[in-house]
Amino acid sequence: MLAANPATVSWLTGYGVEIETGPSPFALGPLALLSRTDGVVVIASEDEAPAVRELGIEVVSYPGFSLGPLNALAEARRALERAVAGRRVATELGALPAGLAIRLSYVDASAEIEAAKAIKDPDELEAIRAAIAVCDLGQKAARELAAPGMTELELWGAIRSRIESFVGRRLPVLADLLSGPRTAEIGGPPTERALKFREPILFDLVPRVGCYWGDSCSTFVLGEPDSTLTRLHTRAMSVLEQAVKAVRPGAPAASLDAHARQALSYPHHTGHGLGTSYHERPRIVPGSDETLAPGMVIALEPGVYEGENGVRVEAVVVVTDEGCEILSGHSLSLSADDQRP
Amino acid sequence: MLAANPATVSWLTGYGVEIETGPSPFALGPLALLSRTDGVVVIASEDEAPAVRELGIEVVSYPGFSLGPLNALAEARRALERAVAGRRVATELGALPAGLAIRLSYVDASAEIEAAKAIKDPDELEAIRAAIAVCDLGQKAARELAAPGMTELELWGAIRSRIESFVGRRLPVLADLLSGPRTAEIGGPPTERALKFREPILFDLVPRVGCYWGDSCSTFVLGEPDSTLTRLHTRAMSVLEQAVKAVRPGAPAASLDAHARQALSYPHHTGHGLGTSYHERPRIVPGSDETLAPGMVIALEPGVYEGENGVRVEAVVVVTDEGCEILSGHSLSLSADDQRP
Repeated sequence: MLAANPATVSWLTGYGVEIETGPSPFALGPLALLSRTDGVVVIASEDEAPAVRELGIEVVSYPGFSLGPLNALAEARRALERAVAGRRVATELGALPAGLAIRLSYVDASAEIEAAKAIKDPDELEAIRAAIAVCDLGQKAARELAAPGMTELELWGAIRSRIESFVGRRLPVLADLLSGPRTAEIGGPPTERALKFREPILFDLVPRVGCYWGDSCSTFVLGEPDSTLTRLHTRAMSVLEQAVKAVRPGAPAASLDAHARQALSYPHHTGHGLGTSYHERPRIVPGSDETLAPGMVIALEPGVYEGENGVRVEAVVVVTDEGCEILSGHSLSLSADDQRP
Repeated sequence: MLAANPATVSWLTGYGVEIETGPSPFALGPLALLSRTDGVVVIASEDEAPAVRELGIEVVSYPGFSLGPLNALAEARRALERAVAGRRVATELGALPAGLAIRLSYVDASAEIEAAKAIKDPDELEAIRAAIAVCDLGQKAARELAAPGMTELELWGAIRSRIESFVGRRLPVLADLLSGPRTAEIGGPPTERALKFREPILFDLVPRVGCYWGDSCSTFVLGEPDSTLTRLHTRAMSVLEQAVKAVRPGAPAASLDAHARQALSYPHHTGHGLGTSYHERPRIVPGSDETLAPGMVIALEPGVYEGENGVRVEAVVVVTDEGCEILSGHSLSLSADDQRP
């Protein structure tokens, strides 16, 4: 099997593929070839090869950054041909560049790969716990640092700086940071809008730490929340708590979704898997045919969006033999001052 | 012509393709089809279509984020078939996903596209000026905010926060931020290393503002630099000044490179084009067969790396009818206190 999606390459290799600045002008993205005979072999440019080899993984490499002419596609293709050596391979046809499709007989294996990713190994779970610890720290920072008059962007910059200093390096991060009436828009990046007393702040923080994404959301208020916001928050919390209680092996994803959606109306999923992608199987959505199984990691995030208020609360859980364990440790309280998980 | 590289899609459309968090789990990246009859038509999911339509560009769209089953590849393929409508198209085979290669007769047009991108239109130049203004601000912030004891990462976080607040939104940013002996490594991200008096700080800041990348580098010292560092800096500055003076229409890129490299030894390019990619044509490298022409935008960045010191200085210029205009406005002084350009 030939992995081409960065998330699948990370999943097979433990190598955190660079994603933050788009495609490299010097090389194609790394590929990972998994075979019964050779295990995992990576096809990558010399820009990335040393970091992959450090993980003990064989690399078939081609020149990357160079003072000479650049010919990444032809070079990558030759390296791939060498690695594949005439064998039949299944691949990810939505990610493999057409210029690397060296065999007309490629079969798309994306669905099988996505299914295999859903159950996490113990070492993957360790990596996800580390990513969730960064979420916890970031959510704590948001409550500590938020102040009236500060813009969403200023708050965002301070939070990001804190989590990157904690981890010791830059991190790819997806985030919704919305305040006031913007919270009703469900998601969106931080803007120049200034935070105000008594308005909701919705913060969904999704950092990639190494190869694995964490996920977390909470909604909080500076000062005293009004009764409308308190009521919405209470409803969202109750739905989240019931959803967490319902997580167990054999539970149908569709039932989990239906129960939550009966109590609360929102236009997004009730939850989703989490791993080397920030949204993967199982999907907790209407009509899902998936069933929960031990080792699945699920982010549950019911929300309610009414008038000028949006409230979303999120917990990441791992399905155990009997039920689930909550991995998230951040505060879900509506009061910014309350840091208790 | 079917553009698949995000940089080329941005170039054709003015739409800043999301790149910071890797491939979307819900859709394939946007494509842009350029034809004599229809102009530019974008093929994108409904997640991105509204932003493209706001630019006045026609979109053939397919479902993106959805509560139902996800089938991005099949949906994107159908949309592309509708847009192509049986015509022959050239494309970027290093970027187009194999599953979207609906025609066996695809021809790779990457080289022609890269050549066309090298000469900038007035509106592109405006966009690059805006990106350079962000570089100037970030370089100024680096000198203002750097202090002994602060880690490279802390400095980085504060600079990034300042430029994002200036622009009013999050930005993709590539950056080298190195201090002390790390500067001899030429490039690398900020780490937990603490800044010290009298050590070099090398800061290469490359933000994408809208669709266009800025580029900038300077090397500075907190306090009094020693004589070695001063000597290296003087040499690098002299090479940069001479290189800028040599930029004019008709100048061969290879000569520009050879002259700079005669005076200073470094393992990287002397310079490169800048646009919707952070490294594009013309490449100022040995053996280049390119010739400078009006409208080309070039980042010149000679450096010197010896022992425990690395010094690199950079200026972005646009080739004019008679010579060039310097676009960069940041300080290149070795003293952190000196903010004069």
